[in-house]
Amino acid sequence: MSKMRPLRALISLQEAKETIKKVVEPIQRTEVVPIDDLLGRVAAENLHATIDVPSFDKAAMDGFAVLAEDTFGAGTHSPVTLESIDVIHAGEIGSKKIRNGQCAQIATGAPIPNGADAVIMVEDTEMTGNQVQIFKPIYPGGNVFPKGSDVKAKDLVLKKGDLLTARKAGIIAAIGIDRATVYEQPKIAVIPTGFEIAELGAELKPGQVYDINSYTLANLIVENGGIPIRYPVIGDSMDDLRHVIADAQQYDAIVLSGGSSVGEKDILIDVIKEAGKIYFHGVQIKPGKPTLFGQINGKLIFGMPGYPTSCMINAYVFIAPTIRKMARLPQQTPTVVKARMAKRIVSSLGRHQFYTVRVEGGIAFPAFKESGTITSMTHADGYIEIPYNVDLVEKGQEVDVILF
Amino acid sequence: MSKMRPLRALISLQEAKETIKKVVEPIQRTEVVPIDDLLGRVAAENLHATIDVPSFDKAAMDGFAVLAEDTFGAGTHSPVTLESIDVIHAGEIGSKKIRNGQCAQIATGAPIPNGADAVIMVEDTEMTGNQVQIFKPIYPGGNVFPKGSDVKAKDLVLKKGDLLTARKAGIIAAIGIDRATVYEQPKIAVIPTGFEIAELGAELKPGQVYDINSYTLANLIVENGGIPIRYPVIGDSMDDLRHVIADAQQYDAIVLSGGSSVGEKDILIDVIKEAGKIYFHGVQIKPGKPTLFGQINGKLIFGMPGYPTSCMINAYVFIAPTIRKMARLPQQTPTVVKARMAKRIVSSLGRHQFYTVRVEGGIAFPAFKESGTITSMTHADGYIEIPYNVDLVEKGQEVDVILF
Repeated sequence: MSKMRPLRALISLQEAKETIKKVVEPIQRTEVVPIDDLLGRVAAENLHATIDVPSFDKAAMDGFAVLAEDTFGAGTHSPVTLESIDVIHAGEIGSKKIRNGQCAQIATGAPIPNGADAVIMVEDTEMTGNQVQIFKPIYPGGNVFPKGSDVKAKDLVLKKGDLLTARKAGIIAAIGIDRATVYEQPKIAVIPTGFEIAELGAELKPGQVYDINSYTLANLIVENGGIPIRYPVIGDSMDDLRHVIADAQQYDAIVLSGGSSVGEKDILIDVIKEAGKIYFHGVQIKPGKPTLFGQINGKLIFGMPGYPTSCMINAYVFIAPTIRKMARLPQQTPTVVKARMAKRIVSSLGRHQFYTVRVEGGIAFPAFKESGTITSMTHADGYIEIPYNVDLVEKGQEVDVILF
Repeated sequence: MSKMRPLRALISLQEAKETIKKVVEPIQRTEVVPIDDLLGRVAAENLHATIDVPSFDKAAMDGFAVLAEDTFGAGTHSPVTLESIDVIHAGEIGSKKIRNGQCAQIATGAPIPNGADAVIMVEDTEMTGNQVQIFKPIYPGGNVFPKGSDVKAKDLVLKKGDLLTARKAGIIAAIGIDRATVYEQPKIAVIPTGFEIAELGAELKPGQVYDINSYTLANLIVENGGIPIRYPVIGDSMDDLRHVIADAQQYDAIVLSGGSSVGEKDILIDVIKEAGKIYFHGVQIKPGKPTLFGQINGKLIFGMPGYPTSCMINAYVFIAPTIRKMARLPQQTPTVVKARMAKRIVSSLGRHQFYTVRVEGGIAFPAFKESGTITSMTHADGYIEIPYNVDLVEKGQEVDVILF
């Protein structure tokens, strides 16, 4: 706090976003997950069927397997009579070949017996002993799911890059596969810094506040498809920082945050410069001006503002898209609702402002208190964006609220 | 398949949905989860703060803690000079009381020392030795976050029923709490039945198909906030069913599905009637007419159609809302896009049809093949609904596609 370096020139929000887009790379590592854990993961290889589904011609109805040609003259008043020579349940194979004049009782899902080429629905028949009256003709293939009609052997069932869903689980199950090769989720080190930051559960000493940012960040990382690794709170001496950052390089990215604005601290910049580079430090946004983005030994590093609301807004703007890109997940499309401002808001020219609001009955009430609070976030339903060249939103003005 | 009971009168989709709404009860059991695992869970009790946040008056800026009244005459050309008697870092407590004519160097986040009531930003000062020139006046409370300004002790920070998010994690961390009491997730037994159903990974015997429904159902249950418990495939003899249903009653609900339409089998109905009741069996929808909903010894039981597409569509329509209600999660609001039908679709009068489609460039292409396929689902982006009293959707007609 005594010796101060000037903040370098701030870059625009747009520029910051584009820098991240350019620098961030999707994870290449893959892993195999069981079919019950594939939700929200991304396929890392093409998967081709090795079997036909179904693997046999299958009855689509309960009824009688017949040679279609035997039924051609059948009608309500002129039934054709066939002899039933077999009963085929689902999961069984008919032992007899069906010849002209014959049929076999068959259950939905059972394989069509040899010789037969259609199934007459039970509703269109009447059985007496083993004599079956057929009251309706059927065409060859009628009520039969042909072998491979759902999936053919060699069909592509999962495409590299597919987002895995319950429906995708269905198709891999159909071909007998109980796992999927997916991309690993990005592992993100979350490092709280600051002498005034206390661990949850610990006694709060005078002058201390509890660590908020580690938990909002960790949950936000999970929400966007990453795996957070939370570090204990460290002080912000150069040695502490250097040591923990060295350790955290085993992960895919490092996010630092703290009680005070770690991004503003010269020592973080110095540590990064020793073994990496800074892409930007200072963005024309509010809250969150001091946000820092760089890399160290090839790993991404973010220095987040320490104020809880600043940290979280900047995490939504910068960290969430980063993790989604690393995880190869589609970027989120925000849900936007129209509302009218309950009060006039004054903004800062030259900074793109994210202003949190609560929406009730089409009216947007300010939720933003101070970037140092967490309630500016927890009491909000979303935020409005006020561009850098607008300094006033009038009471009653219609605004787009981006819902959390 | 030999002795057939007539299907009872089908009920309407609306009636089926309302029955479920009336019968399904939210889970009452609660559990405690760590703060890192609270995403998507629902608070089971009100949580009140026991501390003020911050717990002391806090500097909002780097600068000098002063008595505001000392600065009242200050100006760019008429600075006030104060003597700095202390340096207070974040996490420290100033040891000295500030009196008129004095100030203390202070870092953002540090406690305001005794006597002082405002912070002058460092930018508005100039320090020489321990003499600090102040170039701007400040009002009492300026650049100070008062004790409790974010959260006051006794404030309600989590409300029973709150959906827990990263932002909610932030506020419980702020008051030093590292866990939350939440409602348990509903545990749902998933029981595949049918002699023709093979377990994944097993060799497919002639006439067999792999179990698809257990996996689509299990993933859909997870997606909607439940915990699936998958049972191995059982045959569909009365004894098998009775035995497995008895075991599955340890969970909150039971979902049966199989290769053939388990809902159509009399034996399931008989087993349920021994110790429970059937709310409906047979719904005027397509696919999925035979869907069954009942309870047995107080536990909900669903008999799902065996065809993979029928099973899944019915799971979206009936199981997803059930689990969300049990889990106390908000019902999903479907994403709907407009598209024009690529082809004419003929529907069945008297049944509300869910017809799966693929959407490309504003055109809805039929994805639906047969309800016996899984590709009707996996190749689809969503579905259109064709009401029971409509039998034709014309080529080129505009339709609402509900995206999966």
